[in-house]
Amino acid sequence: MPMTNHQVRLADRPNGLPRATDWSLTEEEVPVPGPGQFTVAVSHISVDPAMRGWMNAGASYVPPVEIGAVMRAGAVGSVTASEHPGFAVGDDVYGVFGVQEHAVSDGQGVIKIDTSLAAPSVYLGALGMTGLTAYFGLLDTGKLKAGDTVVVSGAAGAVGSITGQIAKLKGAGKVIGIAGGPEKCHALTEEFGFDAAIDYRAGNVRKALREHAPRGVDVYFDNVGGEILDDVLTRLARGARVVICGAVSQYNETQVRGPANYMMLLVARASMTGMLVFDYQDQYPQAMAELAGWLRDGKLVSREHVVHGSVGDFPQTLLMLFDGVNTGKLVLALDGGE
Amino acid sequence: MPMTNHQVRLADRPNGLPRATDWSLTEEEVPVPGPGQFTVAVSHISVDPAMRGWMNAGASYVPPVEIGAVMRAGAVGSVTASEHPGFAVGDDVYGVFGVQEHAVSDGQGVIKIDTSLAAPSVYLGALGMTGLTAYFGLLDTGKLKAGDTVVVSGAAGAVGSITGQIAKLKGAGKVIGIAGGPEKCHALTEEFGFDAAIDYRAGNVRKALREHAPRGVDVYFDNVGGEILDDVLTRLARGARVVICGAVSQYNETQVRGPANYMMLLVARASMTGMLVFDYQDQYPQAMAELAGWLRDGKLVSREHVVHGSVGDFPQTLLMLFDGVNTGKLVLALDGGE
Repeated sequence: MPMTNHQVRLADRPNGLPRATDWSLTEEEVPVPGPGQFTVAVSHISVDPAMRGWMNAGASYVPPVEIGAVMRAGAVGSVTASEHPGFAVGDDVYGVFGVQEHAVSDGQGVIKIDTSLAAPSVYLGALGMTGLTAYFGLLDTGKLKAGDTVVVSGAAGAVGSITGQIAKLKGAGKVIGIAGGPEKCHALTEEFGFDAAIDYRAGNVRKALREHAPRGVDVYFDNVGGEILDDVLTRLARGARVVICGAVSQYNETQVRGPANYMMLLVARASMTGMLVFDYQDQYPQAMAELAGWLRDGKLVSREHVVHGSVGDFPQTLLMLFDGVNTGKLVLALDGGE
Repeated sequence: MPMTNHQVRLADRPNGLPRATDWSLTEEEVPVPGPGQFTVAVSHISVDPAMRGWMNAGASYVPPVEIGAVMRAGAVGSVTASEHPGFAVGDDVYGVFGVQEHAVSDGQGVIKIDTSLAAPSVYLGALGMTGLTAYFGLLDTGKLKAGDTVVVSGAAGAVGSITGQIAKLKGAGKVIGIAGGPEKCHALTEEFGFDAAIDYRAGNVRKALREHAPRGVDVYFDNVGGEILDDVLTRLARGARVVICGAVSQYNETQVRGPANYMMLLVARASMTGMLVFDYQDQYPQAMAELAGWLRDGKLVSREHVVHGSVGDFPQTLLMLFDGVNTGKLVLALDGGE
């Protein structure tokens, strides 16, 4: 075990896409746990679009990451030292450990994971916040009903790919994914079981929606915002539910594009609702049990896009989300990770 | 009774604010009812922001008014001749009779009104679609709860002024109206019983909302869209409901401004829902009875801004809505109307 803890800290608040100069790589001694604490050797770091929002000043659903602080990140790892009665050396855990090799924790928000059931990275994907976001966003916020026509944007991404699969498993009539490029679209229909894929880079999304969803869209699960949100708004069925989960197309824009077609909510008597997975904490166990059952039975495909490297690779890995490079859940595995 | 029926027809589709050349004034003989029909002498014509949308090409929640057709309008009047078993000469009625002096009808969508209970113009206001829109928009779509902080935009307008009053009657904790100019703001607090008024022309709406709604906005009833919608989105309380009733600031814009702050729906776990009064037809009687009771008891103020004139005055009267001239329900009373 190295005695040095390498960390990525926020050095500056980006304007647009984060630049190398917005980060600083720091070293300090591996922390020693005090009473009621334990330390974790981090093996896998979750890389999420929401991180871009955490880098901005100003209150949101969580406080911003302060300048000079270790970048916030969900991660999994193993307990290496413990003065906490609930966690023992060797326990595998998930927590918001940050972009660093070693973290000290008092156990708050930390859950133990069973790496014999699924690989650690799966606990950042289908069995983690990603899968839970898809689950509650679609079923609770989106109020999915059997037979519904469902459209998912960012469909080949972490949350999107799980959302489409849950929709099928829960009886949606038709599940249509929107993604960028032929490879992702191929993955949607061949790997994740979507009924149809729309390549937004290839042409007219509205026209494709007219073709694939002739009776309109009952549930739209939006991860991207921007032009695609406006396109889908024109195709809502009466009483449609639009789930606002993310807006990855807008996170690096200095001027956010609001949905100019929002009055289609009136035409369709539809709703647009924001959701955050943290509100469902008391229902996590039941949802994780259902997700784990689907995974075990081969009904749910969890795909992680794992980048192997060191914490210093985090800044570039984050940019992959905005380049549209990843399919599935983007994970940074620290050296020795799988 | 004149033998000539004067009518206002749509001559062209406006781009921006309707111009005089978008209308034609036509004359034809007063229609004679066929079997199952009756004719109505129109006394009061409803003048509504939604009319601007009906003038555009393209499907919406109702088909557009065709070029050359009599302009669509809700109106009240008296039956002057009848071959319909359900309507007798002298009956006072409400219906979508159009901008004309005489209409022929088969009774569809026509309801009899009791002009001994309230003046005819009130059936275009508090006891008409206006009052019903406020009622169902606030109580059903907005899910008003006792103690809620409610914000209404276009608050001195037809729907807005009723909405604020219903909110108070149904136990809202605080009701804040947004309107343009000191006179309207005075009417909000002194006539319509709002707890506070914000003059959007006088300054910073966000700052005023911080002051008047320090714990955030639970229900926002939006009649205007545009910058004010964006301002209120920044002040939503957790679980807030935004009711999309109209967007009068945008109806004459060639490029609609979408709400750039829509991601605040996620931060607040809030919803934005469109509503149309027509969906509540089976509940009209119960709502009208409650509204009529409040009117009778002096708990609800119905204010109509009545322009006396002829159908030829309709084009200019319509523009008053977009100039922000009217307070309360805008009605065109044909000569002899009150």
